[in-house]
Amino acid sequence: MSNTEKYNVALLGATGAVGQKILETLEAKNFPIKQLKLLSSPRSAGTKIKFKDEIIVVEEAKPESFEGIDIALFSAGGSVSKRLAPEAVKRGAVVIDNTSAYRMDEQVPLVVPEVNEGDIKNHKGIIANPNCSTIQMVAALKPIEEKFGLKRVVVSTYQAVSGAGAQAVEELKRQAQAFLNGEAVDAQLLPVKSEPNHYPIAFNALPQIDVFQDNGYTFEEMKMINETKKIMNREDLHVAATCVRLPFFTSHAESVYIEVEKDVTVEEIQHVLAHAPGLVLKDDIKNQQYPTPLDAAGKTDVFVGRVRKDLDNPLGIHLWIVSDNLLKGAAWNSVQIAESVIKNNWL
Amino acid sequence: MSNTEKYNVALLGATGAVGQKILETLEAKNFPIKQLKLLSSPRSAGTKIKFKDEIIVVEEAKPESFEGIDIALFSAGGSVSKRLAPEAVKRGAVVIDNTSAYRMDEQVPLVVPEVNEGDIKNHKGIIANPNCSTIQMVAALKPIEEKFGLKRVVVSTYQAVSGAGAQAVEELKRQAQAFLNGEAVDAQLLPVKSEPNHYPIAFNALPQIDVFQDNGYTFEEMKMINETKKIMNREDLHVAATCVRLPFFTSHAESVYIEVEKDVTVEEIQHVLAHAPGLVLKDDIKNQQYPTPLDAAGKTDVFVGRVRKDLDNPLGIHLWIVSDNLLKGAAWNSVQIAESVIKNNWL
Repeated sequence: MSNTEKYNVALLGATGAVGQKILETLEAKNFPIKQLKLLSSPRSAGTKIKFKDEIIVVEEAKPESFEGIDIALFSAGGSVSKRLAPEAVKRGAVVIDNTSAYRMDEQVPLVVPEVNEGDIKNHKGIIANPNCSTIQMVAALKPIEEKFGLKRVVVSTYQAVSGAGAQAVEELKRQAQAFLNGEAVDAQLLPVKSEPNHYPIAFNALPQIDVFQDNGYTFEEMKMINETKKIMNREDLHVAATCVRLPFFTSHAESVYIEVEKDVTVEEIQHVLAHAPGLVLKDDIKNQQYPTPLDAAGKTDVFVGRVRKDLDNPLGIHLWIVSDNLLKGAAWNSVQIAESVIKNNWL
Repeated sequence: MSNTEKYNVALLGATGAVGQKILETLEAKNFPIKQLKLLSSPRSAGTKIKFKDEIIVVEEAKPESFEGIDIALFSAGGSVSKRLAPEAVKRGAVVIDNTSAYRMDEQVPLVVPEVNEGDIKNHKGIIANPNCSTIQMVAALKPIEEKFGLKRVVVSTYQAVSGAGAQAVEELKRQAQAFLNGEAVDAQLLPVKSEPNHYPIAFNALPQIDVFQDNGYTFEEMKMINETKKIMNREDLHVAATCVRLPFFTSHAESVYIEVEKDVTVEEIQHVLAHAPGLVLKDDIKNQQYPTPLDAAGKTDVFVGRVRKDLDNPLGIHLWIVSDNLLKGAAWNSVQIAESVIKNNWL
């Protein structure tokens, strides 16, 4: 960062899975913090969390919690964001919201810094962090669009259980062990905690992430469709999505089929991907090199492999995109937005 | 079946995973067997297998093993089929081959009975059973094509480890237990036994099934592309495929995006699927009803759900297709072909 100023930062949802990753990211990036305030629901208030060499006691989030805060990172669910983000903004904070509450709000920039950093400038206090599965896809699509155009996207996802929270991780472990022991597998949480039916995720695949909409799509699928168009500023872009939950812990993978505007070679696409910010091209099939969820876990980049052309359509391209859903898909991208706000004096 | 004649049947590969399922299917369907001969490699010869109330000793497969055989079911790998199928045909048997050895041979019909039963008639001794992931897809696409036309297919698969054989099933179990114990996970088999690199499949996803071709596709992907065109007799059909191995034991799932010729409603597509042979429509999102691999395991139908229209393209349709890869994907379809041969006097 170019200046040496320090900031009062609040983290709402400090005890959650993404909250933990935000703390790790703030520490890893040595974010310029003057004072860090950790906030949560009344239930988790009082929890003690170590940050650098300091023990911080988590406080219950209230409107007045945001007095004097410069940057507030929100990751405590959509309803909490709806209630408290305006209160934080009223008190002068810039809110970076990692829920779906404001993502499609026309007043709110929805940002992946490698794709549309400039949109941050127009914020009115709230900046939204996109859905995990959207972030990694647009990070790979943007450099391709810039060089070769982009007409359509058909994506099928392979999503990790950690996207459904820490309890889903425990459910997968518990079910997998029960199955291996030959015991009955009990489902209590997935695909969606609040819905009536729960199905085993261990050694299974569930074609439902989040609740169904009236149009037959899940909310997760609609996030990918709508957020991709908004982030890329391409209302005309055709986006078709199917989202599937799978029995692994970390990183989402995506089989992405695109149509570009120009007839390009695989090598040209690979070259662009290899030189784009935040992307790592891992595509050497002769040596069986391609990204997998296990490989990408714990890393902050977006990995792309299996680049190849449609054999029937010279404008069709296949990509296999993998990234850690809690890092670039959530915490890392949120902190990148915060860094951009500071660097560009967009507070 | 319309007649009461009985047949001499040979099963080559009797001790393998698919061989076992063929035996179960012959028994379940009460196939009209006069005498059943079980054949294998020299290594497995001597194994005793129970069929109905009889104990049958597995014999080493040799050219003369097929003397007097009417129907020979081959499921012992492509090289064995290449060597012995012509020997069986020479001795008067009809060979139903469940390997990739003859699938793309112009002289050999490639058959899913619900789709192209009539092609069997033109056989010259060998009839090929398609790849598992192809069978379930074309079973669902055919009735849609008949009513509404079909222009293109973009498929991403979610494939079970049993498609790689019984050893892969054991590898997934072993790795999952090691992971849950916090031990190192050792990979010896997947994605492809004969290749230099092996990666964990437990709690992971591997975008490689079978070996890579010079065009950047895996052989599994090329099977889906080429076999779909051949079975549907549609060289002009655009087919794009990405095949991914996942940590579940049984049933392949497929996220299939198609473009039809006519602007149809979801209800029209659902109606056609609900009334097509071998298909079960499981598509009631209000009650969270959709197919999953665990549900489909052990069943002989192809299950279809998540039917919905592309929001940007009135001719685009999404389908989620799931079927037991060892049953309709292999054993069940092979025995269906044998039944058709008999029923239609195409021996």
